[in-house]
Amino acid sequence: MENNQDKCRELARQIYELDADVYQLSGSILGRTFNGDKEQHIATLAALIYTHPQGHVLRSEIALIGNMARTISNKADRSRMMTRYNEILKEIEKIPSSFGSVDIVDEQLAALNISNPDHPKTGDDHLIICIGRTHGSAGTDIGFALADALKINYYDVEIFNMVLDRLEAEKDSFNDRENFDPKLDHIYPSTPAKRRCSDFSRYHGLPKKDAIFFNQSDLIRDMAKKEDFIVMGRCADVILTNNRIPHISIFITAPFQQRVRRMMEVNHLEYKETCKLLKKLDRKHERYYHFYTGRKWGDAVNYDLCINSACYGIKESVELIMRMIDKYPRPHKN
Amino acid sequence: MENNQDKCRELARQIYELDADVYQLSGSILGRTFNGDKEQHIATLAALIYTHPQGHVLRSEIALIGNMARTISNKADRSRMMTRYNEILKEIEKIPSSFGSVDIVDEQLAALNISNPDHPKTGDDHLIICIGRTHGSAGTDIGFALADALKINYYDVEIFNMVLDRLEAEKDSFNDRENFDPKLDHIYPSTPAKRRCSDFSRYHGLPKKDAIFFNQSDLIRDMAKKEDFIVMGRCADVILTNNRIPHISIFITAPFQQRVRRMMEVNHLEYKETCKLLKKLDRKHERYYHFYTGRKWGDAVNYDLCINSACYGIKESVELIMRMIDKYPRPHKN
Repeated sequence: MENNQDKCRELARQIYELDADVYQLSGSILGRTFNGDKEQHIATLAALIYTHPQGHVLRSEIALIGNMARTISNKADRSRMMTRYNEILKEIEKIPSSFGSVDIVDEQLAALNISNPDHPKTGDDHLIICIGRTHGSAGTDIGFALADALKINYYDVEIFNMVLDRLEAEKDSFNDRENFDPKLDHIYPSTPAKRRCSDFSRYHGLPKKDAIFFNQSDLIRDMAKKEDFIVMGRCADVILTNNRIPHISIFITAPFQQRVRRMMEVNHLEYKETCKLLKKLDRKHERYYHFYTGRKWGDAVNYDLCINSACYGIKESVELIMRMIDKYPRPHKN
Repeated sequence: MENNQDKCRELARQIYELDADVYQLSGSILGRTFNGDKEQHIATLAALIYTHPQGHVLRSEIALIGNMARTISNKADRSRMMTRYNEILKEIEKIPSSFGSVDIVDEQLAALNISNPDHPKTGDDHLIICIGRTHGSAGTDIGFALADALKINYYDVEIFNMVLDRLEAEKDSFNDRENFDPKLDHIYPSTPAKRRCSDFSRYHGLPKKDAIFFNQSDLIRDMAKKEDFIVMGRCADVILTNNRIPHISIFITAPFQQRVRRMMEVNHLEYKETCKLLKKLDRKHERYYHFYTGRKWGDAVNYDLCINSACYGIKESVELIMRMIDKYPRPHKN
């Protein structure tokens, strides 16, 4: 539909008449305000469509008619009204820059988001789930249980440290031999791993924690080419995004008091010291994430999704994530 | 399993032996660090299980063995190792306060969360989706499209104002008649609505914006007893939680620059004025939410879920939410 004044006026008339019919059929007299001066109302509505097709006011006007139409008790009448309602919605969609027509999608982000059904399937992508979490939110428990449910690998800071330690130990053994164990290739790419190993002890002249971070980053990037996995923290979301490797990034948190309650139970601590400890750990997390990414830790704009684990619990959080990534194994309802 | 030292030692031995077998079968030599002094390692592991069953270190040790076992190329070997791995996990689960055993769930929050499959179905509950959103994130477009897809009603601030205006106009007509239109009962509860109407103009001595807020709150609470709907903003999540009415609360946002880009396109604005406007609107939203709820607007702990709409777009956000609430109509994969 061209966005000219005649067309807008015609659409306004259709909306007005649908409104009148819907209110009559629903037996309500609430519509009568709208029914004041017919031609004046149509002119106002036409102007609204012509000048502000994106406007939330038009959408709200339409939505209110739809809401009312759904209350019509006679099924045939209701169906007839909803058909007209849907036809009007379709007409509005054709108007340039109508509401809903300007998407919010960031094509670059969406292309990397594997929980987006529009994500282009190349066949090479692995299922990589990055989980950030506040301490005490059971995020690591959820990550571990999710890895188990999906039968994929699970990596957290301790595992990275163990792997890096073993690779470093491996380096010494490697230096003594001519051939590296080819089976390692299956797990971690051999040549870059070896090079990283030999470089590891030197830290590239960086502070040790930076060296560890960069070693972890390389490991995450290399693993992403080889296997499906869940990675806890390590700014893996940002590392993968910067390397244009598809994944899903989830942040798990829970209200402070609920995290305190859980940490007290888990670690047999007193209330006051738990509060203090949790605040300290939050600050530490925040600084780490900001230092290596320049972003605000836990801010919803930095993840695909955030989950409040207190509203779900461990088991249901796992199931929720599985539904999100559409891998939920039980037969679907409907 | 009792949490006594002998049992822990037995479990530690099983873990150690599984680790040794898995590394041997995977053909890797990385496991050998772990294989240093067998009895010493078992003693350390047993102590870890006995003293810190919750400890993330134990989980990481186990997870690393699982990760490695999944790389075993011979299917029968892999299956045998994974069976032993799962048996060990089951044993650990039986240990009091083992990792994963202390849940984060807040029973009160979970009972009100309709996207939680554990939510008790009473038959009286309606599908109520509360959507908070940052301006420019397409949250209202997502809410409207979701209402359309679910065939349920959609309410936003304009609709509330229209409904309240019409109810107020209705009041005058009502005062002239003896019987109120009984059909209205179907839409909004008649007696309280009428009483609210007659009280509305008086504002209960409150500032007008407070009166509107409280009228909206009453309306939301009454609607929740009658119908399925989506409500945009209005602190509906907190109103429903305070009234112990089940719902799902979702916050939709997107990176600032992406929201700016979209608002410029939608409203034909310049970059600088859009940034200024968006910051102003964010502050306004923040103050409104904090004033009526005492909570921080947009903080993930205040919602069941947060979605970054830039990672999905409008259509995919709708589909994501439908998967979350398990109402997604297309045939399920797997």
